[in-house]
Amino acid sequence: MDGLFSSPQFHAYAKYGTIAILKMMILGPLTATTRRLKGFYSSNPEDYKAFSNLSSHEISAHLTKRDPYIERIRRCHRNDLENIIPFITFGFLYVSVANPSLEACLWRFRVFLAARILHTVCYLVPLPQPSRLLAFAVGWIATVSMGWAILTS
Amino acid sequence: MDGLFSSPQFHAYAKYGTIAILKMMILGPLTATTRRLKGFYSSNPEDYKAFSNLSSHEISAHLTKRDPYIERIRRCHRNDLENIIPFITFGFLYVSVANPSLEACLWRFRVFLAARILHTVCYLVPLPQPSRLLAFAVGWIATVSMGWAILTS
Amino acid sequence: MDGLFSSPQFHAYAKYGTIAILKMMILGPLTATTRRLKGFYSSNPEDYKAFSNLSSHEISAHLTKRDPYIERIRRCHRNDLENIIPFITFGFLYVSVANPSLEACLWRFRVFLAARILHTVCYLVPLPQPSRLLAFAVGWIATVSMGWAILTS
Repeated sequence: MDGLFSSPQFHAYAKYGTIAILKMMILGPLTATTRRLKGFYSSNPEDYKAFSNLSSHEISAHLTKRDPYIERIRRCHRNDLENIIPFITFGFLYVSVANPSLEACLWRFRVFLAARILHTVCYLVPLPQPSRLLAFAVGWIATVSMGWAILTS
Repeated sequence: MDGLFSSPQFHAYAKYGTIAILKMMILGPLTATTRRLKGFYSSNPEDYKAFSNLSSHEISAHLTKRDPYIERIRRCHRNDLENIIPFITFGFLYVSVANPSLEACLWRFRVFLAARILHTVCYLVPLPQPSRLLAFAVGWIATVSMGWAILTS
Repeated sequence: MDGLFSSPQFHAYAKYGTIAILKMMILGPLTATTRRLKGFYSSNPEDYKAFSNLSSHEISAHLTKRDPYIERIRRCHRNDLENIIPFITFGFLYVSVANPSLEACLWRFRVFLAARILHTVCYLVPLPQPSRLLAFAVGWIATVSMGWAILTS
């Protein structure tokens, strides 16, 4: 009776969307773990009090310090938010109203997911540019192509 | 006829998802209000011109200044974006394709919402660590458990 | 058979939600293009290596430099994430469970979209305050009014 939710298109969306979000969610614990390993806790004095042996005076001096690699993970995480959430939104509307073939869905979902996994690898290794720029561009175009299909359907 | 949308699982998702998003949305006006009360407007000269009595010279000096508590609210808001949006996505896919019992839904939704409200309280008071870390971890695990159920259904 | 997905309310949601997300997505390439034009690449040495003629020593000095206009685009993008995503979530739940008239949908969707386009214009020109604050407030209230309708339905 729920035509959409038992369709292979929606199941493909559920699978690739879930993997993309899980990939993004790994970056939260990765940030927290790297903070523990490196001893940098951004501007939170309560974190330094609980997780370091620094004195109050030393903590004050540390609150403005940033570790370059932790900031890199955070930039990667923010870029995921900016790109994966539009994909999640458009993927759902695309399978709901644009009546796409399963093949058209799988192409877009797989290209997007591959591009975003590559983007994360490029950011966190880091690999020389323009690899990260290309990965961003491919994922962006795959997402916009669904937005366009929604508006013209 | 719309089986999913009249199911108690979907109604539970709509209720807890809406409360979680509303909780996050409070942080926007809270940031704006705290900016007015403390007179810190990040790097926007047009805000200082309209909302403060500072001269152009003083505004230039203020653009790089940050208030620690406003930055704390913003970190809390960003952490909500990073965690509540995956919950919104997985909650919908979970009730759509994983065929969960109402009890399994309510457990996950209530644990997640309680963890995120606690996370906000821990961040904004602030409470000693590892309280905030634990609240983050519980919400993260509740979300991932739905992601896992979607992929294996 | 899919009552919701063929309703004019859902089609209005798909249209306005897609335009709002596309508007937000423009800010990604706008940031990247402005970085190329101005030669500021945040804290990524690999970007400076590929896209500038700076020496390693000069790159180290540039990693902490920020261009005010690029940071302005980024604040605008983050504000969009904080506000458009709640709209996307509530818009879907509103048409799914609150049984609104098409007119009630169109009012909320159009007011929200107009407010967010105005917010972007206010931020990027920039226009004098409180124009940006008003645009933010109108979009926020349109979104919360849907959240309220979901909870009381």
